[in-house]
Amino acid sequence: MRMFLKELKFDSTKHTYIKDITEVVNKAIKKARVKQGLVVVSSRNTTLGIILNEIAEPNLLRDILAHSLTNVHEDRRSTRVNKDYKYPTCDYKHRCQDNPFCNETDEDYNAAAHIRSIAFSHSSITIPIRIGKLELGKYQQVAIFEFDGRDGKGKNPIRKRTVQIWIYPAENITII
Amino acid sequence: MRMFLKELKFDSTKHTYIKDITEVVNKAIKKARVKQGLVVVSSRNTTLGIILNEIAEPNLLRDILAHSLTNVHEDRRSTRVNKDYKYPTCDYKHRCQDNPFCNETDEDYNAAAHIRSIAFSHSSITIPIRIGKLELGKYQQVAIFEFDGRDGKGKNPIRKRTVQIWIYPAENITII
Amino acid sequence: MRMFLKELKFDSTKHTYIKDITEVVNKAIKKARVKQGLVVVSSRNTTLGIILNEIAEPNLLRDILAHSLTNVHEDRRSTRVNKDYKYPTCDYKHRCQDNPFCNETDEDYNAAAHIRSIAFSHSSITIPIRIGKLELGKYQQVAIFEFDGRDGKGKNPIRKRTVQIWIYPAENITII
Repeated sequence: MRMFLKELKFDSTKHTYIKDITEVVNKAIKKARVKQGLVVVSSRNTTLGIILNEIAEPNLLRDILAHSLTNVHEDRRSTRVNKDYKYPTCDYKHRCQDNPFCNETDEDYNAAAHIRSIAFSHSSITIPIRIGKLELGKYQQVAIFEFDGRDGKGKNPIRKRTVQIWIYPAENITII
Repeated sequence: MRMFLKELKFDSTKHTYIKDITEVVNKAIKKARVKQGLVVVSSRNTTLGIILNEIAEPNLLRDILAHSLTNVHEDRRSTRVNKDYKYPTCDYKHRCQDNPFCNETDEDYNAAAHIRSIAFSHSSITIPIRIGKLELGKYQQVAIFEFDGRDGKGKNPIRKRTVQIWIYPAENITII
Repeated sequence: MRMFLKELKFDSTKHTYIKDITEVVNKAIKKARVKQGLVVVSSRNTTLGIILNEIAEPNLLRDILAHSLTNVHEDRRSTRVNKDYKYPTCDYKHRCQDNPFCNETDEDYNAAAHIRSIAFSHSSITIPIRIGKLELGKYQQVAIFEFDGRDGKGKNPIRKRTVQIWIYPAENITII
């Protein structure tokens, strides 16, 4: 078995959003010249996950975002909570700066982003490849789900994100 | 690496249900004559996912379904909400017919089904194969979780669903 | 394609907890002498799942646990509910002993543990291998998420758990 890797690096400046990456993944499969096999799309961040759903309908994305913010309450100390914040808040224990591996400027209260990432996304998603592209249904797209972007305007720098597209080719497909 | 594909096509006429497909997957593995490797069970629909849990106990399925309907509120305009509907409702923005790829008769309000699919199921599940069948624990079964079936009695036609069983064989297993 | 299997068997005596197993998985990869490929970490239990998140910060784990207990209510008949139990409770239908495969002493009411396992963990997680270890971000660790441990002090025996580490090697990685 061989493997191909395409790495996506990007700035994530909006707090919470969903972004279609289906075409990026299909281009990587094309570049690797792989006709069939498996793709693993994986996040290297703990507050950004991968989902597969109907991403092409903007109102549905608004509904998914609103549910994630309502169902998992925000830390009331979070930089995203201000007088106009309209979703529920609560008290958490976690502070970003308490991670023993943390050597970055990161003073925030993002327990909710971690919990939303666990509840509403995947650290990786596995999708078969067929006829040189992702084998998806008519309404399916693969997307990143960001739960904790930073715009760089407060204390914390802009979020740098990494998503990896791993491609595992197969020789052929036998229909059974 | 080779791949085998067994495609399941079926009508989904009940709104929300969980159905064990363990035996169907094991039969596909047997037909492919694969002794060890990987299975990826994947859904081609955005409101039907795959789960792996204790599917053999009907009361547990009732509890899982009731939780999914309670925790994610239903759109109050949905065709499934009537005077006897007993779970919470709310307002969403999404309408099925707004998807730019939609060329079907599909006038409904199923944001809740999409969100439940994201929160309570997977677009695909990866399971190892050992000794010619799924490597599962005593109480584990693999199942489809339907969040938005249609019985064909209203405006919308019966739901046509596709689930794929992808089998990736390996030569042998080394215990370490 | 070859496969390696490392099986972890352990007693799970605390009701609900999260435990980092990153080093155990990396040791298995080293023992298998695999430089690149895929790992599938899978649970053989229906109330214990796998997650990948920031496991190194103990306060975050407390927040994740508290959310899982708050968001999915506990069965009021459960052995874990006593006068000091502080999370919400409700009525479920499921009883452990009703599973048709059950030939064990297991008299409890753990529907909530099953639902939490579905909502907050995975039956298996797929992670790429690179340079002889798990390809993870700086803050990512892989962990087991136990939803229904038993301490052996009541009617039910101590919980015996099995987690499997499946390793699928690849020959090389091509960066594209």
